[in-house]
Amino acid sequence: MFARTPAPPYWAVIFASQRSDVADAYAEMADAMVALAAEQLGFLGVESVRGDDGFGITVSYWESEEAIAAWKAEGRHRQAQAEGFARWYDGLFTRVACVKRDYAWTRG
Amino acid sequence: MFARTPAPPYWAVIFASQRSDVADAYAEMADAMVALAAEQLGFLGVESVRGDDGFGITVSYWESEEAIAAWKAEGRHRQAQAEGFARWYDGLFTRVACVKRDYAWTRG
Repeated sequence: MFARTPAPPYWAVIFASQRSDVADAYAEMADAMVALAAEQLGFLGVESVRGDDGFGITVSYWESEEAIAAWKAEGRHRQAQAEGFARWYDGLFTRVACVKRDYAWTRG
Repeated sequence: MFARTPAPPYWAVIFASQRSDVADAYAEMADAMVALAAEQLGFLGVESVRGDDGFGITVSYWESEEAIAAWKAEGRHRQAQAEGFARWYDGLFTRVACVKRDYAWTRG
């Protein structure tokens, strides 16, 4: 579940979204986009949760801003973004951030 | 649900966690910590989701690294952190990041 990111600095895209009530093909798209992201140059990992109320947070991690820009512009991803605006989401908030420090812990 | 953050740059603490199966007092602590964070100097907002599998992501937003350091050291928060290690979490990953760009959209 936790992304195994390298030592900072690296980059994060914090994507918060509120789902619409349109279920059609959403789950397939979401799975396909995670798989496609994982193939991109500079991808480091992803963490994603959606609650029962349809609010979700997905954080993807990247080596560089350039890798994020390339992923944003990727053809199938652009198509998914357009579908998202058209029907899958009621709202979203995307933030691009540079991770400066991190700390991981797992129970013995 | 979406945090109403100001124009970048600002700071984010990305807190991913896997809950243990210990439910005792967790919900009360979690609510109390969100309320306490909201009272801190430099707090900008928070977005939080936990899935049915116990994996959750909470992102809190802050004006500065100094505000984050002060929140980390806050007394009741430190006590909650200790309880988290002792019983509420099986694993966690905290990342401190500077948000450089953001983009929000709402339907209608």
